[in-house]
Amino acid sequence: MPDVPYFAVIFTSLRRELPGDGYGAMADRMEELAREQPGFLGLESARDPAGIGITISYWETLEDVAAWKENAEHLIAQKLGREEWYKWFALRVARVERAFEFTRSDLSSPDSEN
Amino acid sequence: MPDVPYFAVIFTSLRRELPGDGYGAMADRMEELAREQPGFLGLESARDPAGIGITISYWETLEDVAAWKENAEHLIAQKLGREEWYKWFALRVARVERAFEFTRSDLSSPDSEN
Repeated sequence: MPDVPYFAVIFTSLRRELPGDGYGAMADRMEELAREQPGFLGLESARDPAGIGITISYWETLEDVAAWKENAEHLIAQKLGREEWYKWFALRVARVERAFEFTRSDLSSPDSEN
Repeated sequence: MPDVPYFAVIFTSLRRELPGDGYGAMADRMEELAREQPGFLGLESARDPAGIGITISYWETLEDVAAWKENAEHLIAQKLGREEWYKWFALRVARVERAFEFTRSDLSSPDSEN
């Protein structure tokens, strides 16, 4: 990740639970496609067993965010999302102003601190 | 949620998997405590089986974000997070500049659109 500022697209969703609806394959494809776009910085995603999912993609500029939104294949996925996959979602575009990262330093000996 | 702009605290984490480490109770307590703070607007959270979690809290102002960071009980949780619970985390503060919400309108008859 570069220094701030950069941009986050926060997608929070509640899935419908329809077997065989092609969601998993399209989600994988969208992640692969996002990674190929100009200005892509990173992606974080979590979906819990209750069906609530959060996916955040990070971008260099608002123009990059707009271009990803208008990507032809992504537009198809957005349409299917509305028609098939989601009960609810919220989409937010945010400017990241501060960022901090922590990595545990003693992963090889987790009990040594006690 | 109010109109934009407002602020998002994006917490992405990778858990250590230690049984009986008190994580669940503290996470619940932090959510309860956040909801009582001035300027709190909402919270979204998802943790997937791989141990990756994303929690986003939303706040009216940067001052509200700073006050929540310095909350005494929250400071204890932050310390335990570094010492016990997380292999890795990233914390970002972002200004939400655009927001859109979608709610499916035909939940009672999901096949009617075809």
